[in-house]
Amino acid sequence: MHYVLVHYDIPEADGEAWRLSVGGKVRTPLSLDLAALRTLPTITRRVTMECAGNGRARLSPRPVSQPWLVEAVGTADWTGVPLRSVLDAAGAATGAVEAVFTGADHGVERGVEQDYQRSLPLPADKDVLIAYAMNGTPLSPQHGYPLRLVVPGWYGMAHVKWLRDITLVDSPFTGFQQTVAYRYRQEPEEPGEPVTRMAPRALLVPPGFPDFMSRTRVVHPGSVRLEGRAWSGYGPIERVRFSPDGGHTWTDAEVTPPGEHPGAWQAWHTEWTATPGSHTLAVRASDSSGRTQPLEQPWNRGGFGNNLIQRVPVLCY
Amino acid sequence: MHYVLVHYDIPEADGEAWRLSVGGKVRTPLSLDLAALRTLPTITRRVTMECAGNGRARLSPRPVSQPWLVEAVGTADWTGVPLRSVLDAAGAATGAVEAVFTGADHGVERGVEQDYQRSLPLPADKDVLIAYAMNGTPLSPQHGYPLRLVVPGWYGMAHVKWLRDITLVDSPFTGFQQTVAYRYRQEPEEPGEPVTRMAPRALLVPPGFPDFMSRTRVVHPGSVRLEGRAWSGYGPIERVRFSPDGGHTWTDAEVTPPGEHPGAWQAWHTEWTATPGSHTLAVRASDSSGRTQPLEQPWNRGGFGNNLIQRVPVLCY
Repeated sequence: MHYVLVHYDIPEADGEAWRLSVGGKVRTPLSLDLAALRTLPTITRRVTMECAGNGRARLSPRPVSQPWLVEAVGTADWTGVPLRSVLDAAGAATGAVEAVFTGADHGVERGVEQDYQRSLPLPADKDVLIAYAMNGTPLSPQHGYPLRLVVPGWYGMAHVKWLRDITLVDSPFTGFQQTVAYRYRQEPEEPGEPVTRMAPRALLVPPGFPDFMSRTRVVHPGSVRLEGRAWSGYGPIERVRFSPDGGHTWTDAEVTPPGEHPGAWQAWHTEWTATPGSHTLAVRASDSSGRTQPLEQPWNRGGFGNNLIQRVPVLCY
Repeated sequence: MHYVLVHYDIPEADGEAWRLSVGGKVRTPLSLDLAALRTLPTITRRVTMECAGNGRARLSPRPVSQPWLVEAVGTADWTGVPLRSVLDAAGAATGAVEAVFTGADHGVERGVEQDYQRSLPLPADKDVLIAYAMNGTPLSPQHGYPLRLVVPGWYGMAHVKWLRDITLVDSPFTGFQQTVAYRYRQEPEEPGEPVTRMAPRALLVPPGFPDFMSRTRVVHPGSVRLEGRAWSGYGPIERVRFSPDGGHTWTDAEVTPPGEHPGAWQAWHTEWTATPGSHTLAVRASDSSGRTQPLEQPWNRGGFGNNLIQRVPVLCY
């Protein structure tokens, strides 16, 4: 049930014939099939991945794009070859400053026909993966079969799926998904700041049971164990606060330390005594970089990086 | 990528401890674990399943529920035990007229706290399955692990997931999902007709490549092979018509006969010569019962059974 966002169509991919080319500012251009790639040492990383547009549906005015509430986040175990190992095999030439990643997905966006492309600065972080497996099985088509990039800590747009080419370049990449899309902008003409790492966010596992076609949860009176997950691309979550009254009063929840999976969300829990009536529960995370979820929603044109505190309506009877 | 609609939460299910109870108007009440169920003969059926609300997003005014365009349909191979075999083992008592199926999913709908329940008339169709596998592997949690009903030809609401109980009754079931929800109604107070079998529908595999954030497909000039699928719960598809101009003129597409999978959609194809400019492609299916897709959308309060012809905007350059 990991979320999926696809800009264009899911390509039909033949894993047997697939080649990953590595070129541009390298000493030895490479063309790797899956067997060649798997001869390199592999690692597995548990990574929480969130769409940069998660939460967009709450914005007003609402940017025209995928109207996510808070469901566009997931955590999986990704297995593959460190990007660094592949770049070491090709050898970055003098002056290479970024790696540009090209997927096999092709379409039109605001009048520009393109393959999906994103870049990352060099040197690559050691945990960036060229992944071929998710939760122990080959990638499914919608998750990038046969190869995708996995960039722990970054929003989903960086995790290029159906990866077919890596090109090292000697000046920062200016492609559509880097300089037109995925920028924090208030006005259409400003250059804006790039969308990169995930802002801190805590979510509550929905308590009780649902009221179909509303966002209200229903519980019966008494003690309710509340639990959830929290993550940030800027460092471990250090604090999750819980409010039983929509944000008027707050108490600290118990947060599990990051442990052996620094790229994955952390569990948290607390107790709440439900009394008959309507309630709004709220949760708020803070990370080790000093970032905290906002109480009021900032706005940007693309609807990116929204991490407003979560408020969950609950009816108790 | 099979569609999923869940009224309440996906239950946490322990397959080892699961019991399917069979009771009510039977001679021998049963409590079957998965091992006992699998001692009965199993069959596999390829079944096209569509949400009764597929197409709802096109209605005006739009009923408040899942805003599907046309994505809420899928086809899978379901393996399980014929419902008839289980009912034969229990033995319907004199006067039993319907079987009521209860899932483990629990929630509130329009103020009514309930387990999800639906019924089918007796005798059961021979192809109705109590399925434990989908495409050769155990059901995933979102598709009803460990057991679900599969009712070929019927809309999805009949295929009760997380099936835990079958009760035979001697008068027609009047539960919420049978007499309140899932009725074709124009006015709130009328009893309405029950939603049962899938109306005929043809869909086009999107040609060319997409324009992100629009529903327009982009093609280059020349001959384009168009293909798609068509299905009906009332009998085989006998005719699919194609229109290159939004429904002004029509030609017949080539339709594959149903063959060995009468419960599954049928493939169809045709050729189209794309010329520069904007086009609206349209497709329209007819089945052996004499039903044909409407050119104008009828409306009902729940937004059920919509099978308006599909119109696909295409830009050619």
